[in-house]
Amino acid sequence: MSLIVQKYGGTSVGDTDRIKNVANRIKMYYDQGHDLVVVVSAMGHTTDQLIEMAKKINPHPKAREMDVLLSTGEQVSIALLAMALDYIGVPAISFTGAQVRILTDKKHSMARIQEIDTTRIIEQLKQKKVCIVAGFQGVDEDFNITTLGRGGSDLTAVALAAALNADECEIYTDVDGVYTTDPNKVQSAKKISIICYEEMLELARLGAGVLHSRSVEVASKYNVVIHVRSSFNNNPGTLVVPEDKIMEKVLVRGVTLKTDEARISVMDIPDRPGLAADLFNRLARADINVDMIVQSTGKDQKNTISFTVPVDSIHITKEIVEAFIKEMGNGSYDIDENIAIVSAVGIGMKSHSGVAGKMFEALAKENINIEMISTSEIKISVVVKKDVGKKALEAIHNAFELDKVQF
Amino acid sequence: MSLIVQKYGGTSVGDTDRIKNVANRIKMYYDQGHDLVVVVSAMGHTTDQLIEMAKKINPHPKAREMDVLLSTGEQVSIALLAMALDYIGVPAISFTGAQVRILTDKKHSMARIQEIDTTRIIEQLKQKKVCIVAGFQGVDEDFNITTLGRGGSDLTAVALAAALNADECEIYTDVDGVYTTDPNKVQSAKKISIICYEEMLELARLGAGVLHSRSVEVASKYNVVIHVRSSFNNNPGTLVVPEDKIMEKVLVRGVTLKTDEARISVMDIPDRPGLAADLFNRLARADINVDMIVQSTGKDQKNTISFTVPVDSIHITKEIVEAFIKEMGNGSYDIDENIAIVSAVGIGMKSHSGVAGKMFEALAKENINIEMISTSEIKISVVVKKDVGKKALEAIHNAFELDKVQF
Repeated sequence: MSLIVQKYGGTSVGDTDRIKNVANRIKMYYDQGHDLVVVVSAMGHTTDQLIEMAKKINPHPKAREMDVLLSTGEQVSIALLAMALDYIGVPAISFTGAQVRILTDKKHSMARIQEIDTTRIIEQLKQKKVCIVAGFQGVDEDFNITTLGRGGSDLTAVALAAALNADECEIYTDVDGVYTTDPNKVQSAKKISIICYEEMLELARLGAGVLHSRSVEVASKYNVVIHVRSSFNNNPGTLVVPEDKIMEKVLVRGVTLKTDEARISVMDIPDRPGLAADLFNRLARADINVDMIVQSTGKDQKNTISFTVPVDSIHITKEIVEAFIKEMGNGSYDIDENIAIVSAVGIGMKSHSGVAGKMFEALAKENINIEMISTSEIKISVVVKKDVGKKALEAIHNAFELDKVQF
Repeated sequence: MSLIVQKYGGTSVGDTDRIKNVANRIKMYYDQGHDLVVVVSAMGHTTDQLIEMAKKINPHPKAREMDVLLSTGEQVSIALLAMALDYIGVPAISFTGAQVRILTDKKHSMARIQEIDTTRIIEQLKQKKVCIVAGFQGVDEDFNITTLGRGGSDLTAVALAAALNADECEIYTDVDGVYTTDPNKVQSAKKISIICYEEMLELARLGAGVLHSRSVEVASKYNVVIHVRSSFNNNPGTLVVPEDKIMEKVLVRGVTLKTDEARISVMDIPDRPGLAADLFNRLARADINVDMIVQSTGKDQKNTISFTVPVDSIHITKEIVEAFIKEMGNGSYDIDENIAIVSAVGIGMKSHSGVAGKMFEALAKENINIEMISTSEIKISVVVKKDVGKKALEAIHNAFELDKVQF
């Protein structure tokens, strides 16, 4: 008998029939004697429809009222799922974020969870009831409704699992788990059966869409084991676990491709301490999400700093860089939107060298030119031309035999 | 400068354009310097759609979960209305029933309001914000969401007006006010400009649909002046006020017709004390809503009790009556579904006689036979054959010159 937190996404509860399916899955666990806390998202496209309605009324609605509006989506789901469980004889009770006091800060539309009061859930679990909790939403200290932003329902589930000290947190989605790379880009991509938080975090940040990095961060902080799996079948999915629970520390767990970034190079600026800090502080203040940063200094003591930013931030980045160069009194810049970032992630890199070499070799074999390189403890990223991005991804995927292994 | 509570029904906020209209109306009042608390219902058919969805999942959903589901309808409305006000420069803030702690008992789907905490509303009014409150919903002492049943949003508005000691409670609907009788049945029906609680209560109980009797009861208890009016024009509507505020106490304020009742006569039962009590207690236990009751005793000490019940309770009523007769050891019964109840209501009846005579005379002139008569202090009801119900209604309406007066 375990305490399991399950989370079902919007596709899994997309219509009344799917809600019934979810109820049947929950019953299966319930009948085995497990204690269950179930987090649900809004049904299918509910959130989009609510946003559309709001925009018709006010193109720039206040975040507080948007949260009041959007939180109804999950509230509908919890009520319907509780009814579906009741219908098949499983006692259940629904709770909004406010009702289980998922206390957050006051940052509407992107609130952070500060505390969860588990009293009421524990009380209901003792009475052998399945607790259905609305994902994505919380409440601030003044009882204003807040929402948690992207990946919010996953976050609710992981935070509840942490607060309840649950044995496992199952995240049900419409794919079978986390893959070695995007199966839509590389056919031979394989499902990863186990991965550690650090690896998952890097993959999530690099755009592997299944889990949001915030949930992984919280899971990692509280050692919550996440099981990412599909609600449409019974296949085992991907376990996300602490590093010490992984036997085989492979060199590369997964590879990713990003094609929505641009490279900016700022050249010929004086090699003076603090200049780089100045530039990146300016970018940070403008909320620009800088990914890779590479700096090189030539013999002439002149600096070149290259970095990548999301393509849709390029306009504002340009303005900042121009102002920066003007104030420095020297320099020039160059922008390339025609790039792709290919990354390899693996905890094994910590202790094994040679990963970079093998990666560059694989690219060289395919005649792919590397424009930028950046490494972290468990990640190597390279910038290549956009049109060879997919080819590069496949080459690296094959070089590390990710198409063969079953982790 | 007054404190005004306004309530807009589902039709008034039926789509995004109508919500914008409502916002403009509120702005008009706001710009005049009034403090405003606005109660809204769910948009148009939202509640029906939610019920339909629930029934697909569970034909007999638990009332608690139904309340969680249905309360989302009003929550959507308050958020959208707050956004619409914000867009036209009127500062506004939305509140769910839980957020302003409209405390109710635990009777889900038909909860009764026990207390309202006005602290938060008063605080926001002081900051010159319009407070938008979700109608129809409350919260019990354990933070479970409750709903107030039929006419619930009106009740929220009236209860808030009472708690805030508001100057007026405007109930916006899709008709111009309360009429002397149903304009769909009698073309010459006139809008009533002022009516007292007692009269309104009787008319509401007799099915004059504009206001629910529960709201009128609360208004009467706390002396809240209700103004029933249309949200689609600026015509003055009907004021519902304490009796002492009415100058002209007319004999008959309005007349009503009910055609969904049946008459049951129980004959030849012994004239023994307690027998009637026994019968009506049985009916009450089965939740049967008995309207008129008439008893007559013949020379032979045998009793006839006649009463009316809603047509859809006739089956269960029959069973109860049969069991009753069997236990008495004597008696028979007779059912007539082919009836109509026509009633005249007016506070002036308290002090003036002759109303009954005038009413019977009007019916006699039209050759309408009266089958049952029942009177209260401010009401006279007669049972006639169903096919002459409308004719009877019109005859009484004209006899008291309701087609002519403008109250």
